[in-house]
Amino acid sequence: VPEQVDLVQTIRSNRLQLSRLLTRAENGQADAEIAAIYPHTGQAHIIGVTGAPGTGKSTLANALTKHYRSQNRTVAIVAVDPTSPFTGGAILGDRIRMRELSGDIGVFVRSMATRGSLGGLARATGDLVCVFDAAGFDVVLIETVGAGQSEVDIARLAQTTLVIEAPGLGDDVQAIKAGILEIADILVVNKADRPGVDNTVRALRAMLDLGHRVERVNHHGALHTVPAVDSLPDEMTSWQTPILQTISAEDKGIAELADKIAAHRDYLQETGVLKVREQVRIELEMADRLREALLQRLLATTDPTTVQSLIAQVTQRRLSMSEAVTRLLDHTTITP
Amino acid sequence: VPEQVDLVQTIRSNRLQLSRLLTRAENGQADAEIAAIYPHTGQAHIIGVTGAPGTGKSTLANALTKHYRSQNRTVAIVAVDPTSPFTGGAILGDRIRMRELSGDIGVFVRSMATRGSLGGLARATGDLVCVFDAAGFDVVLIETVGAGQSEVDIARLAQTTLVIEAPGLGDDVQAIKAGILEIADILVVNKADRPGVDNTVRALRAMLDLGHRVERVNHHGALHTVPAVDSLPDEMTSWQTPILQTISAEDKGIAELADKIAAHRDYLQETGVLKVREQVRIELEMADRLREALLQRLLATTDPTTVQSLIAQVTQRRLSMSEAVTRLLDHTTITP
Repeated sequence: VPEQVDLVQTIRSNRLQLSRLLTRAENGQADAEIAAIYPHTGQAHIIGVTGAPGTGKSTLANALTKHYRSQNRTVAIVAVDPTSPFTGGAILGDRIRMRELSGDIGVFVRSMATRGSLGGLARATGDLVCVFDAAGFDVVLIETVGAGQSEVDIARLAQTTLVIEAPGLGDDVQAIKAGILEIADILVVNKADRPGVDNTVRALRAMLDLGHRVERVNHHGALHTVPAVDSLPDEMTSWQTPILQTISAEDKGIAELADKIAAHRDYLQETGVLKVREQVRIELEMADRLREALLQRLLATTDPTTVQSLIAQVTQRRLSMSEAVTRLLDHTTITP
Repeated sequence: VPEQVDLVQTIRSNRLQLSRLLTRAENGQADAEIAAIYPHTGQAHIIGVTGAPGTGKSTLANALTKHYRSQNRTVAIVAVDPTSPFTGGAILGDRIRMRELSGDIGVFVRSMATRGSLGGLARATGDLVCVFDAAGFDVVLIETVGAGQSEVDIARLAQTTLVIEAPGLGDDVQAIKAGILEIADILVVNKADRPGVDNTVRALRAMLDLGHRVERVNHHGALHTVPAVDSLPDEMTSWQTPILQTISAEDKGIAELADKIAAHRDYLQETGVLKVREQVRIELEMADRLREALLQRLLATTDPTTVQSLIAQVTQRRLSMSEAVTRLLDHTTITP
């Protein structure tokens, strides 16, 4: 398969070509290239870094990057900012980044702001990760703002997910979002020189103890071909989420964090959790893509005036939503 | 259509029957009943109340409820807690609520914790709102924790969305989530007797001024039969998001808030924004339901071993995701 190898060689040796492929992938215009390079992926350690604004998440990602570079490992950073046009955080973060890490060809930073649907964002992020993986980067950091379902979807792409907190961000324990704890493989309390760090660690520990730790294998919306969570063997749920303290602006605690990240990767591989998670992720993505493709086919084969008329009837409360959907589907036959 | 009228009469006069229908609706088992009562909906003012834990959102919803009751208007509250099993917030909130408002048959509170997918939650919430609307409640309050995409989906069900903040919740402006501001029709700074209230108001004002205010008409994932955002006439974008201050534990500022909510409802009706928003919401929901129904049909007509084999090939990196999806779709024909 010479053209596959050609493309992989090209993006490994030519940063401009790599950058161009990333842009096409981000715009969803690189299906053929992704298919070609896909067999050459699977080597990178994909690490998610998520946390609210103010936790020093970007500084921590930079410190971790410098640490990996000191070990001569190459690092790609995908910074995802699924917030509104109010912020423009992605672009700003990018500039600050570039100043500090530019000139090092072992580092590549790509920022993405929200465009289109959040589902589309997760897919584009996945494609970027795939390109960086094939391009030979040892580590791919996916950095997201911790703000709900979109982060959970993006975190699913990571093999090891760090959730970053900082002392004094909320005025009570409840302000620490419980949902985000569930996706944490490693909890990091950054800015650990601030007052209140012990309270934050204690609160996180209490929430972890409270919650029933399950392996991050969520079947909602999947195609249900892999075993359910409760049938996973015991060794797959043996990881105890650690809470580490860092002061990333001073590079403190970063080496210990990198060790813990490596330990988590070992755990994933030795127990087989890595494969189960990947299979679930693939199922979920396949289900999403099938849903969207099928809808587009239905719309392509249905008279638009039929759709418009049904929507008008629902708007006028002459027809319920489920009746309208049933009528559209009644016009439709799927044959294998 | 006598049976429709019968069901509407029943849920208007019999709280036990209302409660049972709500339970069936929450479990997605009331399509026929929803269809029957749907023509009798459209009278309630549907108000979203969203905010982070610690903002006093529930106390504010209660204070607003007492205000409406003093005007002899009936109120239903749907409290949605799309967080993890870590919290169990919905149940707790429910109990506190019940103590304060119980005994008043003009108030009905229903709490929902997350079950199944977030999409499913938004749909169940929509069905509950529909039941309360048909049951004749003047006001339906939808209360959600402000935490991302799920809230945005649920907020879409509301005609008027209040976003609740409180002084001193974050240590910097950035901690106020920008995404949530976009869905606000009215911003409320609650606990306004706390220190830092002026800073919070100023920060919110600055973020509002910074952001380009667009009418909340988001077409991502819709069926594209209504006009795009930028073609809406000027009067549809004339609402200036106000920032109000309340101390809901002392009922301060609540009457002024209720006046502003009424003014927003007038704006929605006079400009026609209400209809445009509803049409978009219906389009989005229809698209979601079609996607899911089509996927289920595809799976029902496809040999499971074919699906499993394709997933295995993607997992083993012998086939890319888009190739696998194409193969599954190639086996499929949709005929109108």
